[in-house]
Amino acid sequence: MTGRPSLPALGIQVKRVARLTLLWDNETRKSHIMKALVKTAPAPGLTLQPMPDPRPGPAEVVVRVKATSLCGTDAHIYNWDAWAQGRIRPPRIIGHEMCGEVVELGANVTSVAPGDYVAAESHFTCGRCFQCRTGQAHVCKNYRILGIDVDGSCAEAVVLPVRVLWKTSRDIPPELACVQEPLGNAVHAALAEDLTGHSVLITGCGPTGLFAAAVARVAGASVIIASDISDYRLALAKQLGVDHTLNAKTDSADSMASAILDVTNGEGVDAALEMSGDPAALHQAFRSVKNGGRVTLFGIPTGQVSFDLPNEIIFKGIRVYGVTGRRLFDTWYRLAGLFKAGLDIRPVVTHTLPMAEFARGFELINSGRCGKVVLTP
Amino acid sequence: MTGRPSLPALGIQVKRVARLTLLWDNETRKSHIMKALVKTAPAPGLTLQPMPDPRPGPAEVVVRVKATSLCGTDAHIYNWDAWAQGRIRPPRIIGHEMCGEVVELGANVTSVAPGDYVAAESHFTCGRCFQCRTGQAHVCKNYRILGIDVDGSCAEAVVLPVRVLWKTSRDIPPELACVQEPLGNAVHAALAEDLTGHSVLITGCGPTGLFAAAVARVAGASVIIASDISDYRLALAKQLGVDHTLNAKTDSADSMASAILDVTNGEGVDAALEMSGDPAALHQAFRSVKNGGRVTLFGIPTGQVSFDLPNEIIFKGIRVYGVTGRRLFDTWYRLAGLFKAGLDIRPVVTHTLPMAEFARGFELINSGRCGKVVLTP
Amino acid sequence: MTGRPSLPALGIQVKRVARLTLLWDNETRKSHIMKALVKTAPAPGLTLQPMPDPRPGPAEVVVRVKATSLCGTDAHIYNWDAWAQGRIRPPRIIGHEMCGEVVELGANVTSVAPGDYVAAESHFTCGRCFQCRTGQAHVCKNYRILGIDVDGSCAEAVVLPVRVLWKTSRDIPPELACVQEPLGNAVHAALAEDLTGHSVLITGCGPTGLFAAAVARVAGASVIIASDISDYRLALAKQLGVDHTLNAKTDSADSMASAILDVTNGEGVDAALEMSGDPAALHQAFRSVKNGGRVTLFGIPTGQVSFDLPNEIIFKGIRVYGVTGRRLFDTWYRLAGLFKAGLDIRPVVTHTLPMAEFARGFELINSGRCGKVVLTP
Amino acid sequence: MTGRPSLPALGIQVKRVARLTLLWDNETRKSHIMKALVKTAPAPGLTLQPMPDPRPGPAEVVVRVKATSLCGTDAHIYNWDAWAQGRIRPPRIIGHEMCGEVVELGANVTSVAPGDYVAAESHFTCGRCFQCRTGQAHVCKNYRILGIDVDGSCAEAVVLPVRVLWKTSRDIPPELACVQEPLGNAVHAALAEDLTGHSVLITGCGPTGLFAAAVARVAGASVIIASDISDYRLALAKQLGVDHTLNAKTDSADSMASAILDVTNGEGVDAALEMSGDPAALHQAFRSVKNGGRVTLFGIPTGQVSFDLPNEIIFKGIRVYGVTGRRLFDTWYRLAGLFKAGLDIRPVVTHTLPMAEFARGFELINSGRCGKVVLTP
Repeated sequence: MTGRPSLPALGIQVKRVARLTLLWDNETRKSHIMKALVKTAPAPGLTLQPMPDPRPGPAEVVVRVKATSLCGTDAHIYNWDAWAQGRIRPPRIIGHEMCGEVVELGANVTSVAPGDYVAAESHFTCGRCFQCRTGQAHVCKNYRILGIDVDGSCAEAVVLPVRVLWKTSRDIPPELACVQEPLGNAVHAALAEDLTGHSVLITGCGPTGLFAAAVARVAGASVIIASDISDYRLALAKQLGVDHTLNAKTDSADSMASAILDVTNGEGVDAALEMSGDPAALHQAFRSVKNGGRVTLFGIPTGQVSFDLPNEIIFKGIRVYGVTGRRLFDTWYRLAGLFKAGLDIRPVVTHTLPMAEFARGFELINSGRCGKVVLTP
Repeated sequence: MTGRPSLPALGIQVKRVARLTLLWDNETRKSHIMKALVKTAPAPGLTLQPMPDPRPGPAEVVVRVKATSLCGTDAHIYNWDAWAQGRIRPPRIIGHEMCGEVVELGANVTSVAPGDYVAAESHFTCGRCFQCRTGQAHVCKNYRILGIDVDGSCAEAVVLPVRVLWKTSRDIPPELACVQEPLGNAVHAALAEDLTGHSVLITGCGPTGLFAAAVARVAGASVIIASDISDYRLALAKQLGVDHTLNAKTDSADSMASAILDVTNGEGVDAALEMSGDPAALHQAFRSVKNGGRVTLFGIPTGQVSFDLPNEIIFKGIRVYGVTGRRLFDTWYRLAGLFKAGLDIRPVVTHTLPMAEFARGFELINSGRCGKVVLTP
Repeated sequence: MTGRPSLPALGIQVKRVARLTLLWDNETRKSHIMKALVKTAPAPGLTLQPMPDPRPGPAEVVVRVKATSLCGTDAHIYNWDAWAQGRIRPPRIIGHEMCGEVVELGANVTSVAPGDYVAAESHFTCGRCFQCRTGQAHVCKNYRILGIDVDGSCAEAVVLPVRVLWKTSRDIPPELACVQEPLGNAVHAALAEDLTGHSVLITGCGPTGLFAAAVARVAGASVIIASDISDYRLALAKQLGVDHTLNAKTDSADSMASAILDVTNGEGVDAALEMSGDPAALHQAFRSVKNGGRVTLFGIPTGQVSFDLPNEIIFKGIRVYGVTGRRLFDTWYRLAGLFKAGLDIRPVVTHTLPMAEFARGFELINSGRCGKVVLTP
Repeated sequence: MTGRPSLPALGIQVKRVARLTLLWDNETRKSHIMKALVKTAPAPGLTLQPMPDPRPGPAEVVVRVKATSLCGTDAHIYNWDAWAQGRIRPPRIIGHEMCGEVVELGANVTSVAPGDYVAAESHFTCGRCFQCRTGQAHVCKNYRILGIDVDGSCAEAVVLPVRVLWKTSRDIPPELACVQEPLGNAVHAALAEDLTGHSVLITGCGPTGLFAAAVARVAGASVIIASDISDYRLALAKQLGVDHTLNAKTDSADSMASAILDVTNGEGVDAALEMSGDPAALHQAFRSVKNGGRVTLFGIPTGQVSFDLPNEIIFKGIRVYGVTGRRLFDTWYRLAGLFKAGLDIRPVVTHTLPMAEFARGFELINSGRCGKVVLTP
């Protein structure tokens, strides 16, 4: 995909490397190397090490990375859990939530120019399957993901197909521009149906849940209720305009359900956005949505979850949306519109670290005492 | 609801009673009695016995019943299972899928006249809740059901609120007119989204599944696949125009999934209608729907069902519809249109019996060797 | 409808009457009279005069009016234009945008109580036509309108069918509570499709256009552009959060179109809300909407309007919505949600006058130098 | 687009040329020429003459044409009317409704193979505009049309971008496979909303109107009413399953409106498909649709048309869809599904002529005594 030459053994696993100057010499291209955060072997951890600078294929560009934010997926790779073991083939540069500046164009590229400031749609879709041909590329059957199936953006530079680039206003600083990818998830999940004037429950205040709260606020939701097990994150939710927060660790499911009815005239919410994957939160979402309402499923449970389908779905006459990725490129356009409408997600980006401090970034993620963590090369 | 006076103990449990003449004497109204199928006590079985003839309230009518079809719900009541024990308060006349002729009007009734041929929406909605006031009365929070919460139509006459009446063409014979209620369920479930030109899997070929197949055929589905565990019912499905049938008793889940891919160009179906409530069928429905497709949940499982949400719903980006009842009265109008379009559900109505043979009717239902069973008073 | 006895000739046309005390004596009911604004004869003008106090039918209530806002329709009646001559049968009390307090209940009324603060849906729908039975009562084929087909609310009291009442929070002062009816028009027009993150053009900044702007702002529209021929009204639009205003009197159609492209990245708007009925504005709306966008038609032209259908609609692949009235009662619920979301329409209500100064109210409306004008009894 | 070298003056205008053998010699490529139907000069008429055989660019293929059907657009070009004079730059090979066999691949083509049987989406969209990037390529702002902006398929061979190819079952004979393009227009127009169980009026029974009738029949429309001014075409409509036909030449607008009410229980139709562009038909469509229904505008009027917007659109609360082209590629997939569902459009293809008899084809089109006319090379 990336046109990267087969990787010579450039380095052994190191925790730190000296900063390397990245020079774009279009003449020689022989000796340049860049820093990148690499899963070098099938084991926990990551290594910051030199890698050859990427070269663009005919329909690709090289982007000098300005920021990459970390995702739960990156933590799975770092921790080398079961999912990561089944999916990742080392060596692999991680990172898929990025922004940067175009520095080199492939032979056939005309739609961007060097100097353009871009973010990237991280799903590289096939363009040929039924889904891709009918405006549903977000569920392409053959997509590959940046930083998972191809080398990612936790690096000084990354190669990207031109079709995934999203030109971004320079008014948006890098630590916010890079989170457009996960923010797009939240836009997709929250706006599966119109929220204007509607009450909404958000179960789970990880970064994507927090983003969803911010989107719901801008979209004119009547009442926004959010639940989580972390007071730290519920405090962030409050900053983003959530009206009512519920701590699922200290409140019982019944008392939360009762509180939700209290603030919705006894009706339940019009929309529930399940952003945690937690079974108790899932049941709270179905329980709290009103008859005829909708539930968006975005959070990923780790195992099977049992449901009382008649009472949770069927007799309620609700609609359930499975949501993954971002609509290409509707979600990106919508997000640009939301920024104009005043969407402010700054409180979610709680930490910006130099890439060398990646280990601290993952510790923060594991602790839950953070919103989005951004790394800068 | 029905204005019926409190019931004196008119009869002990009998299997048969002599046919009683139903005379509408508006003068005296003292001595008339009618035959009705009654749950007389909290125990299995039903009794065909005399009951006082019903009187209409101001916004009600009395309908002389021409036919009532039996539903799985009636079988639950007959068998006196856990659900029935929790819901039914004897004495109760059963029956909610009916047609008949209006014979007496309440004081304020102007929209129908004696002699009108009608079916009934069996859900008596409150008209005042959020759902009722926003065009979603099918998920009214306070509805009562004919034959469950109020006395039903397995009788020579029944009292009905005028607002639930659906005037029916006399071209439709009673044994077909009465099944409009469950057929409406199938219309609602099948047409939650447009089926025209789309492939569809129907899991479960009980009467409502069979009705859904007939609807899908008229709606121009590209390919209709149906599964069941009964060859008898799969043969009925074939008669209704199903293209491919799968026997879930003899075929493995994998071989069925493979067969479904074979007839859908490897894509999976656009729509899956789950009409059985069986866990294996539920999983087949989610497995077989294509990315971006939709699943309608109509069949009622008896217990909890476990799901692999990421792979069955979230990553597929599908829509799931919980469907209950009929849209008031969109579904009824739509059904009238479908009849004009050529909808022919005659093969589904396999048995028409005199009401006195109700026990045989329930035996047929329990055997699975029937479609719809109709009782005539 | 209102159960009002046939009207004796209670008064000759007067401009002022002494304030009459309205006493609710449920015993005698003989001598009470109230002040009302009446079209007494088929000629221009209105008369403030005594009228018999209204009595409720079984499903009606009497409401002591707290405020009634004036509509363009009322001005048509006042001016006695062609439309009014064809529709209004004097004597008729005008007024259909109201709020007040329930003071007397009809015999069958249970869902409201004396003291309840209510607004009214002004369309009294039949409940029996296809549209009413399928959740589309806003286009009922037989509806009658308060203050047009039945006596209205420009009076100290009005009788209303209980089914049109909308209970309103006492937090909303009367001069705002009464405008919920026209505000509902704007909600219906603006939210025919989701506005969140979308750009919108509003042509016409009369009160309903201004309301639509306020709704679009709360709904998270990306960019709101508004046009009118009155700088006074464009200034109001700015107060409501409109981003760009265009004066159609001083700017050419071409320059406005160009300005709209400028602020929409050359795309045109996602949605155009035509709120004026003016032909030039209509064409601007169709011209400025992007391919695949939508146009809502709400403003009422006075004559035929010619279109270049291929270029204005067909080749653009747009959706056009004819919008009238409010969705019953979805729009009212949505509006309640919008208030919770922060909808603030106070700048639109520019004048509140005692009912006796009705003539000044109509002068203001004719001048265009006002938003909404409210009369208080 | 097509990679065709600049055209030397190969021939003067001739009515017939001897059949030339088309040889695919990948070695020399020097001497081959093919027959094609060419607008050689800015004047009425077309010339069947030799043209250089086309060569594919990297992402293009050469298709040996098996059939091309004629469209009203082709007649405009033949007649050289005002539209054609403004749009067509001779020399230009016409023809955009085609099918054929892939015979040569461009360098980068992998998704089709020589021998594949294909039809073509005639709109070559840009892939980069907002519309293309959001699943609305049918209203791409920069599209070029086969046979209009680039050389078309009224030739022995045509070069086509691989992305517009639609693989077609060999079960569909060429004279039917080529009409998939205009049939797709009808699918798009008819199914802008679901027709199942709905009543529909089709105004205009040219080929696309007839196709729409066939689609409505398969889709389970309750009642299909069609109008035209040609008894010949109304007879074709009957063959396609239309229930009621109306001749707008002999019936008055009022009598047609009355007849439409008669067969729709006095309601009017749920959907009106305007396929003629005729002003009287347009008004009939708006007049006959029920409140809350929808009108699809597909037919192209030749001048401005005046509307009574309040009564034709606004107070009716209807939705109006401007429809052009085919949804890429939803419409094509849907069409494939409709064929499986039994769509039979054979009666519409009334004439199949050798390309040399093109003049007779256009005479037929001008006469109105034909359905679709197909030319075979």
